[in-house]
Amino acid sequence: MPEEKSKKQIIYEAAARLFRDKGYSATSMRDLARAVNLKASSLYNHIKSKEEILQGICFENAHRFLSGMKEVEAMQGTTSDKVRALIQLHISIATEDVTSVTAFNDEWRHLSDPMLTDFLQLRKDYERRFKMIIEQGIAEGDFRTLDSSIILYTVLSSVRWVYDWYKPGKSIDQGKLESEISAFLMKGILK
Amino acid sequence: MPEEKSKKQIIYEAAARLFRDKGYSATSMRDLARAVNLKASSLYNHIKSKEEILQGICFENAHRFLSGMKEVEAMQGTTSDKVRALIQLHISIATEDVTSVTAFNDEWRHLSDPMLTDFLQLRKDYERRFKMIIEQGIAEGDFRTLDSSIILYTVLSSVRWVYDWYKPGKSIDQGKLESEISAFLMKGILK
Repeated sequence: MPEEKSKKQIIYEAAARLFRDKGYSATSMRDLARAVNLKASSLYNHIKSKEEILQGICFENAHRFLSGMKEVEAMQGTTSDKVRALIQLHISIATEDVTSVTAFNDEWRHLSDPMLTDFLQLRKDYERRFKMIIEQGIAEGDFRTLDSSIILYTVLSSVRWVYDWYKPGKSIDQGKLESEISAFLMKGILK
Repeated sequence: MPEEKSKKQIIYEAAARLFRDKGYSATSMRDLARAVNLKASSLYNHIKSKEEILQGICFENAHRFLSGMKEVEAMQGTTSDKVRALIQLHISIATEDVTSVTAFNDEWRHLSDPMLTDFLQLRKDYERRFKMIIEQGIAEGDFRTLDSSIILYTVLSSVRWVYDWYKPGKSIDQGKLESEISAFLMKGILK
């Protein structure tokens, strides 16, 4: 049902914007209904609760990043090509889909267990695999011998402004954004 | 009254931890009273409202960064020494004072006007002055010719994980943290 899916996507995106601007706790289903031009009663035909939306958004994004990671692990190329591809993955998801901000900002903290534990597990798995690639680059002698956790979190964190602040088309186009952030970070990583 | 000031500082720090973990909206004065081992009625002797705490934290941190900026602008040294000093400023405030996380995470969004406008004004002023230093480095030919906004926000954002995730003394000590993040970022900036 592609039409249903698109409605859900519209609701997810509106919810992600509200969570970003007001925070999850301060956002009501009424705010969300207003944002998507539905009566609250119609909204409930699509979505059962605010928490269901948060879960949907967090897990969709987690799986998107993990499937990106799987592709990168399987790709031909040097270790630095792999890190470059992961940086591109983060920037392109951030600029193309506003819902990713929810999974990356602090809103996932509002998940309740067992969802919270599951989400953190996926995140930890992603970070562990990213860190292994960095450690491989250090072992091969192509990357600087900095602490691999410091490199990992500095890279993950550095693309975060894109989720928060970048306004597409406003003065920096997406191609320039991707190539310059990537150039900046890769120079910091490589020997 | 140093004792009074220290009580306020204890309350600010407990509040910053609660805001970080639960979000500002979901934190109650009752939670805060419990966190500092006071009866709610005693807490009100020190602090009038949750918003007063948020204001205090945000403006104290904004002024701390602006006074750091003023020192950096006045210091002897190259433009790259200045950028390095600003990066150190961010990392040391992040590791030494948990309240800084409130001003840097999204919690400042809960300020109401005119405080919100004033705070954003201070932030904009800080960013403008940081960007001028970066542009000077590019003009002098020492920094790479990347977009100055991309450099600025990548640097500001990259130290943000320190606020969120770094646990002092856990395996990376503070000296190593500062020197490696700084080494990573400066290599990205310099030609």
